[in-house]
Amino acid sequence: MTGKIVGNNRFLKEFNQTAILDMIRVHRAISRAELSKLTGLSPTAIGSIVSELLEIGYISETGIGESKGGRRPVLIEIKPESLYTIGIDMDVNYISFVLMDTTSRIIEEKMLTMPKTIIFENVMKVIQKEIKRILKDHSITLERLLGIGLSVPGMVDSLEGKVIFAPNMGWENVDIRGQFPDLKGVNVYVENEAMASAISENWIGTCQGISNFVCVNIKSGIGSGIFIDGKPYRGTSGITGELGHMVVDSNGSKCRCGNYGCLETIASTTHMVEQAKRLVKSGIASKLNDIEDVEEIDAKSIIDCAREGDEVSRNILLESARFLGLAVSSIVNILSPQKIVLGKDFVNYSDIVLDSLKEIVMCKALKQTSKDIEITESKLGERASVLGSAIIPLKVFFGK
Amino acid sequence: MTGKIVGNNRFLKEFNQTAILDMIRVHRAISRAELSKLTGLSPTAIGSIVSELLEIGYISETGIGESKGGRRPVLIEIKPESLYTIGIDMDVNYISFVLMDTTSRIIEEKMLTMPKTIIFENVMKVIQKEIKRILKDHSITLERLLGIGLSVPGMVDSLEGKVIFAPNMGWENVDIRGQFPDLKGVNVYVENEAMASAISENWIGTCQGISNFVCVNIKSGIGSGIFIDGKPYRGTSGITGELGHMVVDSNGSKCRCGNYGCLETIASTTHMVEQAKRLVKSGIASKLNDIEDVEEIDAKSIIDCAREGDEVSRNILLESARFLGLAVSSIVNILSPQKIVLGKDFVNYSDIVLDSLKEIVMCKALKQTSKDIEITESKLGERASVLGSAIIPLKVFFGK
Repeated sequence: MTGKIVGNNRFLKEFNQTAILDMIRVHRAISRAELSKLTGLSPTAIGSIVSELLEIGYISETGIGESKGGRRPVLIEIKPESLYTIGIDMDVNYISFVLMDTTSRIIEEKMLTMPKTIIFENVMKVIQKEIKRILKDHSITLERLLGIGLSVPGMVDSLEGKVIFAPNMGWENVDIRGQFPDLKGVNVYVENEAMASAISENWIGTCQGISNFVCVNIKSGIGSGIFIDGKPYRGTSGITGELGHMVVDSNGSKCRCGNYGCLETIASTTHMVEQAKRLVKSGIASKLNDIEDVEEIDAKSIIDCAREGDEVSRNILLESARFLGLAVSSIVNILSPQKIVLGKDFVNYSDIVLDSLKEIVMCKALKQTSKDIEITESKLGERASVLGSAIIPLKVFFGK
Repeated sequence: MTGKIVGNNRFLKEFNQTAILDMIRVHRAISRAELSKLTGLSPTAIGSIVSELLEIGYISETGIGESKGGRRPVLIEIKPESLYTIGIDMDVNYISFVLMDTTSRIIEEKMLTMPKTIIFENVMKVIQKEIKRILKDHSITLERLLGIGLSVPGMVDSLEGKVIFAPNMGWENVDIRGQFPDLKGVNVYVENEAMASAISENWIGTCQGISNFVCVNIKSGIGSGIFIDGKPYRGTSGITGELGHMVVDSNGSKCRCGNYGCLETIASTTHMVEQAKRLVKSGIASKLNDIEDVEEIDAKSIIDCAREGDEVSRNILLESARFLGLAVSSIVNILSPQKIVLGKDFVNYSDIVLDSLKEIVMCKALKQTSKDIEITESKLGERASVLGSAIIPLKVFFGK
């Protein structure tokens, strides 16, 4: 009521184009007549927009639909391998890449080992090189690259494309967007890795059509991405969902953030590995002792030993899940989301701990806030963040 | 894009009326010309709506504004004492009433002591009687009563007007809306007391114009009301902000909810009073011993003794604030709100503990999520919930 929309044909046309593109995406294959019916735009207007989208190659005619009387209609779909995005996800031990097209199809996927010393400039060089290689291998020009999304395990300023603080990487106040001067005209997006996971769960994963949900990622640290009313919740500072720094044990040990008893110090993969090494060094009997060099113990060793029936390894995983369950209970009591999705390293041992974690939440959260909650592992697995990074430019393209 | 608004003159007219009413409320006094400018509606349309609103007595002409060339314009305002709402707030020891008009002016305010045995039917009888008395004393007909809002310390189904569970009151699954058959045509709203506080802070208090904030109320229990994107956040179950049941001490004592170490068991007024009685009984030297009957010790006694320099009493308050600070830090790390408002009993001792609580949050929350946070006591004091209850029907009236 406070203002009128000033007539602006170019703006309106672009708005309609984007809305129609998104409708085609959602329906996968749809006729011009159905588009007209769903949008309320005239068949002439739809015809003109569709022609234009066909001409610039965003969509293609794909087949013949069911007749509802009269001639069987031509169906339209988003054109595969016409426009692309690149998603990149990184943590202390890897850099993942994905090339995706506007149909959300994965064209290429690759994981590199992170350089031993995580120097920001070196990591960026690896990424720049890999992007060039991907574009060359698939003969993609910059005009056909919608954007690049990068997800980082830390706090980001997604508006400015910067990393504010990524303690596990040792990065503080680094400008990521500015690292790609060669990619003229290509949008570069920077996102927190848990929020990137939430974006992919909402676009192609287990949270499609769900308004309020939380993705909790367990890895070197613990983070969460919160969706409220169908969109990423960023709060006032732009940094939210810092579940890893919820105090779950006020007498606990010191965290990298300076605080004591944070969830991360008890339930992250890093903590589990440290705990396993400590137990081996203290001489406690377990299958972990079979590993020749104690420093070689990693999350996989613990999971493998647990699967082979080692109680010590199993308890390390269960103890971590117990505290994770406590933190999740608090999230449930405060936000009452529809779904909690546990991801990243968690998917590698969820079969061992998920039931026990669910029991803790059911027991610790109020029955009224938790009665309809669904707690599940991510079906996208460790790839959720890299897929989410590739989806960010897609969301912009489809006006979402 | 998915549908057209079907022309419906009556609907559009009501929509415009409500929007114009709200604009008059926000501007306090405004001319027809300004209304036309701000809404984009023609002077003729505005003239017609304003005439109708004048006729039904929702607004009145109030004076002459500044001239911007030409005749000085007549200003319009919301008509005081034309339409009313009644707000009611209750806890284990009181029932509060407020009569408010559409200008948010408080016409009458009254607090009754809660009947010793909090039987639901008895409480409702007291409320029914008091509502009748208020209407009679102020000669208000039911046609001029916009609605009644009731706030309860517990979980409510605000859509159905029911209390789901109010452990401190001993109420479970009670229908409040159905208790007012005499008030035909009057809307009855039921709200959680912390959410009611948040509503009043947003309408007339310290959170006007703020999108993301949390009101934390400390009293017999601890609850919070969360606003996200300028509106109450209700999650999937309708029950959110249950901060009192955040586990802050996994080895803590048993809570009414069945869980252990909930914030409520350490930081509520109930806990502080129990703690004080325990200390007196154990013979620890403090001013609290001067109170003749240990069972007479209440929150006020502790606060009074603390003010008189009693360290034991002071420590009870500070220890409560310390754990409250821990829980608030978690809220800040997860939601990064712009403001945290601490209310109800807290306002009676905030001068003693607020600085210390702020320090804890600054130390325990991540500096990135807390950098712009404002933590403050409620300026509406213990009245926030009862005022918020009266405001609920106002919000509906003004289309908010």
